Amino acid sequence: MNKSFSMSYCISPTVKSKGGNFFFFFQMYGRYTQDLGVYAKEEAARLRESGQRRSLSDRSRSLDLLEYKGRCAKCQICTVRCQKFLISRVGEDWIFLILLGLVMALVSWGMDYCIAICLEAHKWMYGGLDSNVLLQYLAWVTYPVVLITFSAGFTQILAPQAVGSGIPEMKTILRGVVLKEYLTFKTFVAKVIGLTCALGSGMPLGKEGPFVHVASLCAALLCKFMSLFGGIYENESRNIEMLAAACAVGVGCCFAAPIGGVLFSIEVTSTFFAVRNYWRGFFAATFSAFIFRVLAVWNRDEETITALFKTRFRLDFPFDLQELPAFAVIGIASGFGGALFVYLNRLIVQFIRTQKTINRFLMKKRLLYPVLVTLIISTLTFPPGFGQFMAGKLTQKESLVTLLDNRTWAKQGIAEEFDYIGHSQAWKHPQVNVFVTLVLFIVMKFWMSALATTLPVPCGAFMPVFVIGAAFGRLVGESMAAWFPDGINTDGTIYPIVPGGYAVVGAAALSGAVTHTVSTAVIVFELTGQISHILPVMIAVILANAVAQSLQPSLYDSIIRIKKLPYLPELGWGHHEKYNIRVEDIMVRDVRYITLNCTYRDLHNVLLSGNLKTLALVETAESMILLGSIEHAQLQSLLSQQLGRSRRLEYIREQAAAEKKRLSMVSNTGSEEDCHRVSQEVRFQVRAHHQRSLKLKCFFFFFFQITEWEEKQLDEQVNFNNCKIDPAPFQLVERTSLHKTHTIFSLLGLDHAYVTSIGRLIGVVSLKELRKAIEGSVTVKGVKVRPPLASFRDSGTSSSESEATELHKLWDRNKNMSLPREQTPSESDEKSQ
Amino acid sequence: MNKSFSMSYCISPTVKSKGGNFFFFFQMYGRYTQDLGVYAKEEAARLRESGQRRSLSDRSRSLDLLEYKGRCAKCQICTVRCQKFLISRVGEDWIFLILLGLVMALVSWGMDYCIAICLEAHKWMYGGLDSNVLLQYLAWVTYPVVLITFSAGFTQILAPQAVGSGIPEMKTILRGVVLKEYLTFKTFVAKVIGLTCALGSGMPLGKEGPFVHVASLCAALLCKFMSLFGGIYENESRNIEMLAAACAVGVGCCFAAPIGGVLFSIEVTSTFFAVRNYWRGFFAATFSAFIFRVLAVWNRDEETITALFKTRFRLDFPFDLQELPAFAVIGIASGFGGALFVYLNRLIVQFIRTQKTINRFLMKKRLLYPVLVTLIISTLTFPPGFGQFMAGKLTQKESLVTLLDNRTWAKQGIAEEFDYIGHSQAWKHPQVNVFVTLVLFIVMKFWMSALATTLPVPCGAFMPVFVIGAAFGRLVGESMAAWFPDGINTDGTIYPIVPGGYAVVGAAALSGAVTHTVSTAVIVFELTGQISHILPVMIAVILANAVAQSLQPSLYDSIIRIKKLPYLPELGWGHHEKYNIRVEDIMVRDVRYITLNCTYRDLHNVLLSGNLKTLALVETAESMILLGSIEHAQLQSLLSQQLGRSRRLEYIREQAAAEKKRLSMVSNTGSEEDCHRVSQEVRFQVRAHHQRSLKLKCFFFFFFQITEWEEKQLDEQVNFNNCKIDPAPFQLVERTSLHKTHTIFSLLGLDHAYVTSIGRLIGVVSLKELRKAIEGSVTVKGVKVRPPLASFRDSGTSSSESEATELHKLWDRNKNMSLPREQTPSESDEKSQ
Repeated sequence: MNKSFSMSYCISPTVKSKGGNFFFFFQMYGRYTQDLGVYAKEEAARLRESGQRRSLSDRSRSLDLLEYKGRCAKCQICTVRCQKFLISRVGEDWIFLILLGLVMALVSWGMDYCIAICLEAHKWMYGGLDSNVLLQYLAWVTYPVVLITFSAGFTQILAPQAVGSGIPEMKTILRGVVLKEYLTFKTFVAKVIGLTCALGSGMPLGKEGPFVHVASLCAALLCKFMSLFGGIYENESRNIEMLAAACAVGVGCCFAAPIGGVLFSIEVTSTFFAVRNYWRGFFAATFSAFIFRVLAVWNRDEETITALFKTRFRLDFPFDLQELPAFAVIGIASGFGGALFVYLNRLIVQFIRTQKTINRFLMKKRLLYPVLVTLIISTLTFPPGFGQFMAGKLTQKESLVTLLDNRTWAKQGIAEEFDYIGHSQAWKHPQVNVFVTLVLFIVMKFWMSALATTLPVPCGAFMPVFVIGAAFGRLVGESMAAWFPDGINTDGTIYPIVPGGYAVVGAAALSGAVTHTVSTAVIVFELTGQISHILPVMIAVILANAVAQSLQPSLYDSIIRIKKLPYLPELGWGHHEKYNIRVEDIMVRDVRYITLNCTYRDLHNVLLSGNLKTLALVETAESMILLGSIEHAQLQSLLSQQLGRSRRLEYIREQAAAEKKRLSMVSNTGSEEDCHRVSQEVRFQVRAHHQRSLKLKCFFFFFFQITEWEEKQLDEQVNFNNCKIDPAPFQLVERTSLHKTHTIFSLLGLDHAYVTSIGRLIGVVSLKELRKAIEGSVTVKGVKVRPPLASFRDSGTSSSESEATELHKLWDRNKNMSLPREQTPSESDEKSQ
Repeated sequence: MNKSFSMSYCISPTVKSKGGNFFFFFQMYGRYTQDLGVYAKEEAARLRESGQRRSLSDRSRSLDLLEYKGRCAKCQICTVRCQKFLISRVGEDWIFLILLGLVMALVSWGMDYCIAICLEAHKWMYGGLDSNVLLQYLAWVTYPVVLITFSAGFTQILAPQAVGSGIPEMKTILRGVVLKEYLTFKTFVAKVIGLTCALGSGMPLGKEGPFVHVASLCAALLCKFMSLFGGIYENESRNIEMLAAACAVGVGCCFAAPIGGVLFSIEVTSTFFAVRNYWRGFFAATFSAFIFRVLAVWNRDEETITALFKTRFRLDFPFDLQELPAFAVIGIASGFGGALFVYLNRLIVQFIRTQKTINRFLMKKRLLYPVLVTLIISTLTFPPGFGQFMAGKLTQKESLVTLLDNRTWAKQGIAEEFDYIGHSQAWKHPQVNVFVTLVLFIVMKFWMSALATTLPVPCGAFMPVFVIGAAFGRLVGESMAAWFPDGINTDGTIYPIVPGGYAVVGAAALSGAVTHTVSTAVIVFELTGQISHILPVMIAVILANAVAQSLQPSLYDSIIRIKKLPYLPELGWGHHEKYNIRVEDIMVRDVRYITLNCTYRDLHNVLLSGNLKTLALVETAESMILLGSIEHAQLQSLLSQQLGRSRRLEYIREQAAAEKKRLSMVSNTGSEEDCHRVSQEVRFQVRAHHQRSLKLKCFFFFFFQITEWEEKQLDEQVNFNNCKIDPAPFQLVERTSLHKTHTIFSLLGLDHAYVTSIGRLIGVVSLKELRKAIEGSVTVKGVKVRPPLASFRDSGTSSSESEATELHKLWDRNKNMSLPREQTPSESDEKSQ
């Protein structure tokens, strides 16, 4: 409704100066109809709602009567009471969290089911055509190409926001920035279907990142749905808390890892975490993981609830102390590998973007890039081809299961003797050593994963990286096992080395390095169902993080930078020069404000000049004393009230009545014109239905009158009576340091803050300025963008000299017993007048 | 130094009015000597430091020369370079964290070792006297009584702050409140020794809570120690971050549970958690847990690094889906049990406090209470007595190990058949069923633990509660095993029920309920080294938390309330009336401030009138425009500079010189008096060493002169040149809501915030007021404590009317084109003048 108004206001001022033309009329007309449509919808919704309420209360009343009619009614009454109780409780958090967990578990399980079918079909096709290698190749390649192309096309058409992992976007949203199009139903559908197809293709893509997004989408949609029942769901900050819980659910029901999910989502999405929200995440993620695993049991896939990738390592002697250096090596190498992965991923994206010819070509044929990438990757993994050297036959899940196997593949330095059971067979090649297979697998999957995650489909990078890490760990483990065939321990008992444990450590370390998180350790324990390797895993993860964090940003931060999302970066610890930047150096001095005694025209102009979320309300333009802030929407509704349909109708009605009266006083002869004017009110209401049938010309008579009325309305003073004013907007002082500002902004999730000096509004700092200042694109000296408006205002107090001299100046002045501050406003009065 | 000054200033004003007396002189004298002592120490420290630096640089220079002298020198050079590098790096976080982890692991291991010896000695004494039951009883009872009494006495004498768990205090400190005496070396010693004795006595006490305190103490002392090397450690906020990491280390090295430690410490101590500190906790806790366990391996206690209470449950089928209701029952019952424990604990403390006769008696004989309690508890656990029915023979650790046993004690409903090995024997009684033993154990230990944790020794409640929970879980598990002897699963394979798994679930649930944390689940996994029961544990812990949180505060919050620590409670979600309270309703209007042109006398009076941490600096008393805030210490040093020793000496020297000159001009005959005056300067410096030998009477001549000089000095205007002023103290507006204020205070860890209206300081809100307002002891109407000073100031704008009317008043005034705000200060000028 507001939008339509602002649209029309964009036009009217230019029109007014020209004296009005036909276009303006159409504009008005267009607006009225649109308005009416919206109005009708709203009315209908209101009626429906009240009808529902009435029917509910009717039902309960009738049931109260029924109470005395018979015994069988008691059950019914009980049911109704339960229902009432439930409805009264529906606003509570735990109901929401249970619903969220349930829905997400169902989505996750359903998706896994579909993906499994897709992969099964791929294998079946490939297996059925084993008579002809060419046909086999075609089947092997075409299937993923088709699926990925469909996924890319579908996502592109329905909701391009669904592309990619979604964690960077969630990080930004949880920071307080509104990215509305990322949380719509369309995006949900696009993400779920696109992700299922993408993962069903067998490409090295992950489910975890997108699942965080899917869970958040689910939470946002549930919030909307639940707000039909109660008013709590309209609370903005509560919704953000629910989104944070949803992120945990996403990870939790993807890996059946509730604790790891909560921790991972905190690490990945938050800067400051409110501990009171902790239980929400745990509750929802646990419930979701539980349902997710129970579905598998009910479906007879599993006997009982266990871990997804259950391992069976020795419990009594999981590892020797002397193996710890090997684990540390895995950690450090994973750190470098993780940084390289992030770098490679960014390089590919930037290469495609900067190479103009490639870029132009790809922009034209958007689906060509996914087709090409899929073709390359699937060709290379073709099992009878190169794939035989890198276990190309196995799906991601199968490779992980084999890599975490507790048997040793290589014994006594010769890799040929072990008996491969089931999928492990794929790692065996008659000519090639298992070490070579592993190295090839790691190298090929590394660049393939980095490449595949740049595809314009919903996809994550966690799982591919996890598998690569496991393969690397396995490689180190197998080498250790070959080096020390009888284990390292020298105290009698022989404990052979368990390469599967190394795989677990490697998986946690590499995924931790890529995402810059420590909680991958917990995810690993929950995924494997064993915690015996806790110390090696923790050591490796911490080392990997230390190395990776010093080399590259995390994958998600890297994507945030590439996508240029409005996220506030962390303030580095080493940058001590940042402590010397003050708010006055970065603030915008040209603040949009409205005064207490402004007219609707001023309001209109201010609203036109930019789309800030809130506007400052000052006493007068001279004193500039900040009284509060008003939301943009509030002001627009003020304006629309003043110039809205009802007031226009009223005016026209009055005019018509006056005209009628005048005419009836002058003469009683009814003219066609008069008749038109009287019936005009009716027409207004009918118009929405019979737009075409309207006789337009009778409006020309009113047109100039309406313009005149509009002008008069705009010159009236604004009445702030029914306006919601925030009396205490966030204020900073000009001397507040950048460091403090950053802390306050990121703690409170602020979007902007006003800068005041003795109550006078002198500037505004928004996230944008802060980001710029932190990213170092501006220096202390180079920042002072002095807009024209600021130059004639007294800003003598806002130089960047040290605070001491500033105060002493004041002190000296004070000694002479003058009160300089109080004169300032009147001085500026004189200047501006 | 500052303290001594303020002490003397407390006296001088009263003295001055009386014209001076002997007491004042002694006071001055006392101060000078104390001052000199401090000064000497500081000088010595400075010299020592510069000496060190010189010797270092000397050494490096000489080594540079050595470089060309021979090959063997190269090694030395290398060492020196490494040393230099290390010293340059010593300021970095990870060095600190490694040191902290190392120290804490050593402390933890050493303490465990001592406790084990103590318990061993107890057993040996008891076992050696098995010929005589009475002697046996005496030995059994006397030993803990002596240890507990020693612990209580030692703690009481050395540092009473070391009593209790320490987690509530750490929670308060991490909130930003300074409780300095809780982080001293004395407290550290008292806590470590007291805790060792208390745990060595075999009472149902825990190590975990105090260990959080010990780790924090250790971190604080390390910070102090490290600040000798670099300046970073003087940063207050950094130290608080380190304390947060230390809490994680405390839990981590107590249970060898790094992940659980980090999470538990976050849940227990923080309200808002900065994710950037996450890795610190993980790093330090992992390192600490690693060293702690490695020490056990080196000491040949263990073969390799494993969990503390390793379990050996079935991996392939840990539990059946149909067992989940039983787990849920454990969770809910634990929730009630946890709430009951907290209630019981508080009841005991309050009973002792409120019963005046008991209280008076106990205050006189402070050690009587611990003696009595220990006597009762140890009598009841005496193995040949009642202890035989409740496995009283076992230590806490032994009971836990037996409770987590993976064998089933009760089979086929008859509890007699199982073969008890090792300590499990204690649970077997010839006449009594194992169920009865378990129930008795739970009931007796429950009240014993609640009672024992009120003892005035360093002690925690986590471990006793954990053991009780495990026993309760075991009870349920054994009942289930007796009920379903062949397991519940009906699909062919027989999987008998594992009561040990129930014990794990019960332990996590009850400890979670008492502490209101979810992370006990993680601690349990790390303690047992198995994660297979993750879902039952999570479900039980969440249910237990839900129940316990709705009934009682957590044990730590309960202690915070009992001890009346300055902690800001959480703002409940249901209390919507809190949203209507504004800052103006709770703020203190009688703000202590200093003006820019104040004299030292004003400063002196303000400093005397209260010990606030910071003082507001306003322009003038009339305008009240807030310019910044100055720390108390800064002002004291300003005052001490003005009236300090050096200036006094200078004055006296000048006086002496003038006197000399005058005397030499008048006549050359040297009087005894003159001689005294000249030598007086020397005496001042010598006095610190020869206090007794001074001839006091020569001072009487100067005494009046000094008083006069002091008076003159006090009347001078304060020079703020060398004073550190915070130019942007935290400001709120009078209309800021309580909810917003609470959020800001707890997010930023504020201690106080100024309330301003158009730049004028009108009030101050400190933690105290906020706490009062939240705790509901004040209502909107009842709050307005209008101090006398506020009544004559213009506070027309600060009524609790709705903001709308407020603004519209202004708006109406504005219509008349007046600027009322600017007149306000001058109005108040007139009033106050």
